[in-house]
Amino acid sequence: MSRNHAKRRRAKRRKHHTVRPGTAPGTITVDPAAPKPLVRMIAYGPDELVDQKLESLEGIPAELGRHAVVWVNVDGLGDVAVIKRLGEIFGLHPLALEDVVHTHQRPKVEQYGEHLFVVLREARLNDRLETEQFSLFLGKNFVLSFGEREGDAFDPIRERLRLKTGRGRGRGADFLAYALLDATVDSYFPILESYSDRLEDVEDSLVQSADRTNLGRLHEIKRDLLILRRALWPTREAIAQVSREEYSLITADTRVWLRDCYDHTVQLIDLAETDREVCADLMDLYLSSVSNRLNSVMKVLTIISTIFIPLTFLAGVYGMNFHTDRGNMPELLWKHGYLMFWIVSGVIALGLLALFWKLGWLTERRATAGG
Amino acid sequence: MSRNHAKRRRAKRRKHHTVRPGTAPGTITVDPAAPKPLVRMIAYGPDELVDQKLESLEGIPAELGRHAVVWVNVDGLGDVAVIKRLGEIFGLHPLALEDVVHTHQRPKVEQYGEHLFVVLREARLNDRLETEQFSLFLGKNFVLSFGEREGDAFDPIRERLRLKTGRGRGRGADFLAYALLDATVDSYFPILESYSDRLEDVEDSLVQSADRTNLGRLHEIKRDLLILRRALWPTREAIAQVSREEYSLITADTRVWLRDCYDHTVQLIDLAETDREVCADLMDLYLSSVSNRLNSVMKVLTIISTIFIPLTFLAGVYGMNFHTDRGNMPELLWKHGYLMFWIVSGVIALGLLALFWKLGWLTERRATAGG
Amino acid sequence: MSRNHAKRRRAKRRKHHTVRPGTAPGTITVDPAAPKPLVRMIAYGPDELVDQKLESLEGIPAELGRHAVVWVNVDGLGDVAVIKRLGEIFGLHPLALEDVVHTHQRPKVEQYGEHLFVVLREARLNDRLETEQFSLFLGKNFVLSFGEREGDAFDPIRERLRLKTGRGRGRGADFLAYALLDATVDSYFPILESYSDRLEDVEDSLVQSADRTNLGRLHEIKRDLLILRRALWPTREAIAQVSREEYSLITADTRVWLRDCYDHTVQLIDLAETDREVCADLMDLYLSSVSNRLNSVMKVLTIISTIFIPLTFLAGVYGMNFHTDRGNMPELLWKHGYLMFWIVSGVIALGLLALFWKLGWLTERRATAGG
Amino acid sequence: MSRNHAKRRRAKRRKHHTVRPGTAPGTITVDPAAPKPLVRMIAYGPDELVDQKLESLEGIPAELGRHAVVWVNVDGLGDVAVIKRLGEIFGLHPLALEDVVHTHQRPKVEQYGEHLFVVLREARLNDRLETEQFSLFLGKNFVLSFGEREGDAFDPIRERLRLKTGRGRGRGADFLAYALLDATVDSYFPILESYSDRLEDVEDSLVQSADRTNLGRLHEIKRDLLILRRALWPTREAIAQVSREEYSLITADTRVWLRDCYDHTVQLIDLAETDREVCADLMDLYLSSVSNRLNSVMKVLTIISTIFIPLTFLAGVYGMNFHTDRGNMPELLWKHGYLMFWIVSGVIALGLLALFWKLGWLTERRATAGG
Amino acid sequence: MSRNHAKRRRAKRRKHHTVRPGTAPGTITVDPAAPKPLVRMIAYGPDELVDQKLESLEGIPAELGRHAVVWVNVDGLGDVAVIKRLGEIFGLHPLALEDVVHTHQRPKVEQYGEHLFVVLREARLNDRLETEQFSLFLGKNFVLSFGEREGDAFDPIRERLRLKTGRGRGRGADFLAYALLDATVDSYFPILESYSDRLEDVEDSLVQSADRTNLGRLHEIKRDLLILRRALWPTREAIAQVSREEYSLITADTRVWLRDCYDHTVQLIDLAETDREVCADLMDLYLSSVSNRLNSVMKVLTIISTIFIPLTFLAGVYGMNFHTDRGNMPELLWKHGYLMFWIVSGVIALGLLALFWKLGWLTERRATAGG
Repeated sequence: MSRNHAKRRRAKRRKHHTVRPGTAPGTITVDPAAPKPLVRMIAYGPDELVDQKLESLEGIPAELGRHAVVWVNVDGLGDVAVIKRLGEIFGLHPLALEDVVHTHQRPKVEQYGEHLFVVLREARLNDRLETEQFSLFLGKNFVLSFGEREGDAFDPIRERLRLKTGRGRGRGADFLAYALLDATVDSYFPILESYSDRLEDVEDSLVQSADRTNLGRLHEIKRDLLILRRALWPTREAIAQVSREEYSLITADTRVWLRDCYDHTVQLIDLAETDREVCADLMDLYLSSVSNRLNSVMKVLTIISTIFIPLTFLAGVYGMNFHTDRGNMPELLWKHGYLMFWIVSGVIALGLLALFWKLGWLTERRATAGG
Repeated sequence: MSRNHAKRRRAKRRKHHTVRPGTAPGTITVDPAAPKPLVRMIAYGPDELVDQKLESLEGIPAELGRHAVVWVNVDGLGDVAVIKRLGEIFGLHPLALEDVVHTHQRPKVEQYGEHLFVVLREARLNDRLETEQFSLFLGKNFVLSFGEREGDAFDPIRERLRLKTGRGRGRGADFLAYALLDATVDSYFPILESYSDRLEDVEDSLVQSADRTNLGRLHEIKRDLLILRRALWPTREAIAQVSREEYSLITADTRVWLRDCYDHTVQLIDLAETDREVCADLMDLYLSSVSNRLNSVMKVLTIISTIFIPLTFLAGVYGMNFHTDRGNMPELLWKHGYLMFWIVSGVIALGLLALFWKLGWLTERRATAGG
Repeated sequence: MSRNHAKRRRAKRRKHHTVRPGTAPGTITVDPAAPKPLVRMIAYGPDELVDQKLESLEGIPAELGRHAVVWVNVDGLGDVAVIKRLGEIFGLHPLALEDVVHTHQRPKVEQYGEHLFVVLREARLNDRLETEQFSLFLGKNFVLSFGEREGDAFDPIRERLRLKTGRGRGRGADFLAYALLDATVDSYFPILESYSDRLEDVEDSLVQSADRTNLGRLHEIKRDLLILRRALWPTREAIAQVSREEYSLITADTRVWLRDCYDHTVQLIDLAETDREVCADLMDLYLSSVSNRLNSVMKVLTIISTIFIPLTFLAGVYGMNFHTDRGNMPELLWKHGYLMFWIVSGVIALGLLALFWKLGWLTERRATAGG
Repeated sequence: MSRNHAKRRRAKRRKHHTVRPGTAPGTITVDPAAPKPLVRMIAYGPDELVDQKLESLEGIPAELGRHAVVWVNVDGLGDVAVIKRLGEIFGLHPLALEDVVHTHQRPKVEQYGEHLFVVLREARLNDRLETEQFSLFLGKNFVLSFGEREGDAFDPIRERLRLKTGRGRGRGADFLAYALLDATVDSYFPILESYSDRLEDVEDSLVQSADRTNLGRLHEIKRDLLILRRALWPTREAIAQVSREEYSLITADTRVWLRDCYDHTVQLIDLAETDREVCADLMDLYLSSVSNRLNSVMKVLTIISTIFIPLTFLAGVYGMNFHTDRGNMPELLWKHGYLMFWIVSGVIALGLLALFWKLGWLTERRATAGG
Repeated sequence: MSRNHAKRRRAKRRKHHTVRPGTAPGTITVDPAAPKPLVRMIAYGPDELVDQKLESLEGIPAELGRHAVVWVNVDGLGDVAVIKRLGEIFGLHPLALEDVVHTHQRPKVEQYGEHLFVVLREARLNDRLETEQFSLFLGKNFVLSFGEREGDAFDPIRERLRLKTGRGRGRGADFLAYALLDATVDSYFPILESYSDRLEDVEDSLVQSADRTNLGRLHEIKRDLLILRRALWPTREAIAQVSREEYSLITADTRVWLRDCYDHTVQLIDLAETDREVCADLMDLYLSSVSNRLNSVMKVLTIISTIFIPLTFLAGVYGMNFHTDRGNMPELLWKHGYLMFWIVSGVIALGLLALFWKLGWLTERRATAGG
């Protein structure tokens, strides 16, 4: 398990190193380990819809003239030729294409000539939280979207497009782009809720006992919330930019829907920040519990030690071998010497207990959260 | 008790999961567990007032033409049909209606066509602090308000409307909207004051003794203040937006009153932030007390141990069985050997006490807050 | 003492609860425990001055026409009739009057029609720091000011007005308002300086020894600085607003003086923030000292314990009763057995001391701040 | 090793002291220990390229007229004459030249007359992270760049210029300046990635055990990230300024590329800030682990001590020498006295173990991160 | 020493109390303990220079007409008459003069009529860091500057003025003002560098051992950096204001030089902030070291205690006096009983050592920073 973990990490590290300093800017190089691209085209107008997986890209230009909206979705970035050819077909800027394949971009929006380029990050929660890049080009009558691998959150959108009655069919490419962005943003909700749930579990557990596993769990949650925050803050900016600025590609009607999407990003950030604060509070609570426990351990040690240490000394005294026949240690010869010893011992022990009682060490209530 | 607690939590979690990624935006789905709506209409002008609980919504359009202001209040969001019908009657945007039923919105203001949509959160302090959504639509001659369940803070407003002499009767719908917002905002005051009171109690308690229950109480207060803060900050923004921007629905006169309401939100945030800082300070004070106590426990242990450990060794020495007839341990045969032992022991003990005195371990005053 | 303390607190709490949710906005209700108002009028022009305590308010309107400036000062807010009558005489807005009697306002400036309404807070340092509200209305030819109780910082101003040669006599009401605001602001200086002095005392004390009383003192100072900060930040904003914005009531000349007053608020905030940081640093220093002391206590315990524990074991060994006649424990029969025991004990003790020396436990210097 | 370290530090300190207060502003003084300048000129147009190392600067003016772009690169700032002569040739402002040689400038952009002056910092990771100053003058047809020593990140750029087909050859001096800035910025990526890797190593190590070396490593990483942050924040501002503002020297086309470079600085800052937070989290994790370990050490001590202390007392009691013939200590004479002693001892020991079990001290799981 | 310290403090406190609330604003009162003023005038034009110490101020007006620039520098503020007379000669505003003598102003810039008033703070590092006020009036053809005592950083400027060839001689009063401000700002560099050096010393020392003196040193450095920060932040604002805003007194050429001075303030703040962060990091490092050391002390105690406690019990057992003739304690009669005892003791000790080895308590490396 731990080995796999280390391997996954090393894999992750390699992925990072995609910007080689000194490479000419605008150069498109792909990670050879990335999955091969799967291309799917959905072309539609108010009255028709074509949905096909493409082996060759050469049919796209023809479809562009024939339908109101053409949506080409590419899952997997492992083939330079495909990326470049798409760049030619849709007339994309080399810097934008470079950003598509270098999958560590922060969410952002950029206008290149007549089309809009949007980068977001999708969150995936496998056994470790990861974010993947989702890039989107919006043109007058097309949307071109790129995901890092197969499997996306867009099936409900495809479903709705297929229904004639759905809202989306009669609207332009900008509404489709909105729908994709909105689905990507909304995919954060169940993930953030799972973290809230985990935090409540940790809190419940901490209230019971200051179990040490909680420390590791809190650390992991904190690290993942950091990842989410890094993805969400620029997402908010990007959506705000799309919905506010006067991009001619986006109609006023779509902007109303984007404003709603923007509200969702604000809510997500709010959730993430709250979770982070709760996380910090629970860490404090954990540390306080640990320090309380140390205190209580020390108190037990101190009470038992301080009671018995004088008694042991006393017993040691009467174990000494001074010769009683020279008048030393007359107590040893007393008739009730032994009884006296026990009485004195009892008095000392009770006296110390009374002292501890007065200091409040014996009476302190054990609070639930301070156990 | 703890079970109920867990149940309540689970219930709460379910409520969270209302935004299902992939749902078409603008879809109105209600939580089936939500209470059924109770609809109450108050329609009035300077000289008349109609107040009735509505079974059917179909009478509303007729009243809209007949009175200066129509206020429809809905408590409970458990019936899609009612929500949708109200949307049709008043001509509301589907996105706004969606926000009404998804009751986890942050406070905000939005203009949809000719009406204004405001979301605030009401705080309720049952055995756990909770916030509920309060939504309000303001039109030219109507106010439509939604609460999550029966029971609201608006009875004094209804009372004042019923009095002919009240300020509100002769004014427009915007003044009614202000009154509702103001009542919602003001309902935070007693709650925040109760937290201030609880913090003062904890402080009093901490000054007496570093009782462990305080840790749990501080943690709870901190968590609740976080909830209040999350509700209050966007409330301030929302009220500021309504009172500043040039919404034609809001008259200059009402804006003066809204500015006062804005002042209240600023004061609330100020109270909440102060409480949070006090909370953090008390946490520090608690931790310092705990660490002080550990110190004092350790000191008692150390003083008693270090005094008796050498004495016990000495007693052990004279308990050894070396044969005195071979000249070993001549002290055992001395006439005053036993007396000497006690004298030496006393000198050692007093010497160590003097050392501790010099180190300042015995003289330190017990400070109230450091006990 | 502690009882009085609790009483004062309870009194304070009651005072808080002045905004009752549901009360009609603009309603003037007074705290029945507030002192009765004492009204004093000073009316003056370049060449004359009238100064009288007023029993009845009805003489004011006449004076308003007769003098260049009329200053009515009210100390004590315990009589609704007086407040309301003044509102009628000077034509004040009900919301402003409500803010005058609800004495928990944050400092602010508001323009109501033709007059300006300013709220500041005065700091009073009795046996606990408290802030009281000071409200001021500025009109074309009058200043109306309200304090919570008798005793204010304005006697030097009255004195200067009485002198013909003073700067203020020939200037308008706006200069008088400036003088009152400036005096209120300046009254924070000696209070903040007293906190700086107390912090230096605590620092001196901490350098001597980590006395526990310091913890309580630091906590109190921190809490009071929080109160001061809450009062000062909005004061700065309020003074900035008065001195910057184009209120026609304030002449350009007075604005220069207000800019100076603004500088004072900036300086006060700077002092308060510095004190807060010093406070936090001292808290850290205190905690470090405590933790250092724990360390040193533990070290003494460890050194003495680890030296004597093996020796005590050795003494215990030779106190065993194995029968020497069966060949056990031949050491007991040796001629120099006892001497050997002491030698071995000495070697062990010196060896352990050497070890501790090498670990650096014996040589560490006692630093002043780390004692 | 430690000596060299100290030496390097002292060297570094000396370097700091370059601004002598009282020196006339605009004076150019060089650090005598700085390396002598190596000057290299690359002059090119769409169809030709001259690349030569210059011994004398006097040939430059002639080349300026002959080629589209002249790039003079100077590595080493140890010769006042060279710097001054270049200032004359290119007509540079004395303040800018002063900034070139005082190599502790923060990244910035300044316009002096017709040319633009940009300062960035290059990061170098030898056995300690260091940043060096890179300064650049951009004129209509020239770029003049200064590095602190030989060895730069620009070889790939020279390579691309030499290729006729490269993007850069046909463009102006502003594109060359962009390429140099971009290469300087991109050189931070591998350095930041090395810190991320080191942090992951530390995390892996902390999960295994709370080894103390991690503390030192975290401290070093934290300090280096602070250095990087100091360099990166103003870099972002500088690049933003160049790419946004209307400097006539920069064409609209180059601005698009600079916007991409700006994105890189944002990403770098994001990486650095994330690393800093991870660093802080790991520090917390380390401290929690240490405190957990202290707890577990104390618990072992307490369990063993509290079990044996009463037993030792009991053994001491029966080692006392009270005379049994006077009726004292009858237990010593019992037939099964010794057996009874062991039984009582066993009961005490088991009783205490049961108590510790109940307190949860024996069962606690050892969590990975809390070991 | 400590007495002097206390005295100096008390002196410092007295100095603070210069704003008496209630004093008429604009009143000039001097601290009677302040040094008497020393007035020096340097009047110059492109071709002449007069430099004289003035006993009487009455010669100044005549010089004002005769030279291009008149610079009057006053060191010491202990004479009201001198200050007031200068106010009359140069036509200064009473509020500005008040700020000159109340030497606790924050750095700021203010325009009074035709002249500009600038306040900065000079840092002086005697045995405690102190800041003194430097005030400057700039008029069309004069500069009037005030320092708190003799000795300033301006001798190099005077030197340069005396040289005919210097830059300053031919320029106006605004360039002289710039030179004075720049020299004041630059005087912070060596002070901040000395703090950086001290921090590096502390770091070196902490890497060696967690000596307690470091705590006190860090505390002092932190406090002084706080003082520097308080002085530097408003300095930056003041210089920015002078260099940006359209004060007609400042020529465009001088503004370029002021922009350079502004860069210096930014660099200073950057240095100070970095030092503060380093300081906080070192404090953390110190605390971690202390806590590590406590851990290691506890471990030594625990190892030695837990090894010997059971052995001591065992020895105690065989020191008991149960009568062997009744069959008790047969071990005492065994032939190899004593040998067996040592064997059992050895097994117990080795077993416990093995346990500690397994817990990793014996093998842990001592890291340099965690010693």
